[in-house]
Amino acid sequence: MDIFTLIKTRRSVRKFKKEKVPDTLIENILEAGRWAPSGLNNQPWRFMVLGKEKKDALAEYTKYGYIIKSANKIILVFLDKDASYNYEKDLMAIGACIQNMLLYIHSEKLGACWLGEILNQREQVQKELEVKGSFKLEAVLAVGSPLSLPKQGRRKTLKSLILK
Amino acid sequence: MDIFTLIKTRRSVRKFKKEKVPDTLIENILEAGRWAPSGLNNQPWRFMVLGKEKKDALAEYTKYGYIIKSANKIILVFLDKDASYNYEKDLMAIGACIQNMLLYIHSEKLGACWLGEILNQREQVQKELEVKGSFKLEAVLAVGSPLSLPKQGRRKTLKSLILK
Repeated sequence: MDIFTLIKTRRSVRKFKKEKVPDTLIENILEAGRWAPSGLNNQPWRFMVLGKEKKDALAEYTKYGYIIKSANKIILVFLDKDASYNYEKDLMAIGACIQNMLLYIHSEKLGACWLGEILNQREQVQKELEVKGSFKLEAVLAVGSPLSLPKQGRRKTLKSLILK
Repeated sequence: MDIFTLIKTRRSVRKFKKEKVPDTLIENILEAGRWAPSGLNNQPWRFMVLGKEKKDALAEYTKYGYIIKSANKIILVFLDKDASYNYEKDLMAIGACIQNMLLYIHSEKLGACWLGEILNQREQVQKELEVKGSFKLEAVLAVGSPLSLPKQGRRKTLKSLILK
């Protein structure tokens, strides 16, 4: 699938089959994230991967816990504050890193949901996972084999996004 | 080119040929950006495209002005504060939007450089371009036909990015 089609057909998947996502694919997903651009090439992203034995504990910290429970793997994305040089640019770099992962996931006919609401309980999540030091949770990706494909999302018209 | 190769071979292009980037491709680039994911689907990104007659005025506001002068087109990416619901998540969404554009640009054998240093003079740039209201400049992309391809960038090892 060409990149244009890949971008336009990607969507948030919230229900997954029980199929396991192979470790080699998880490694490729992170590898895709690793090659994102960042300001001064500071690469502020860090990852944690949770499988069945650990991921369900996270479900308590978001109203979208059912997505976490349904997913086969959870990828947590952290900002390493020790690697940060500009918080604003670091967040955009992490967004680019996440989008690389989402596009790769879609290209492999897997599905993912980028969960943000869980950041409301960031401290509790970090405590649950015993994450200490310079790491700040920025996003959670639920990953699995899609049970069904949601309808295409809606977007504002291009015209309405362009400033004159 | 598959997405994995596309991600890994993309790099910042800083010198461009004089060739024009057709308007249809610019429109496709923005279209790729438009389909990025965002929190609550709020789509906080806005775009401005500058061609020859206007772009060079921006070169004064960054030490990377030579890249702006060399590029055929400049795409400015703004956050619309009126569309914002969470600044942290909006910035990640804008990063995802930018990465969509960079990957599409690379897939078309065009090149781009994501300029961030110019944000040090954000207010002056916005004044120069008479951008008012709720729009906040977050990134500048220099786009054109690559004069040469830079060497592959360097990245931290995947192992060093994974938290246990």
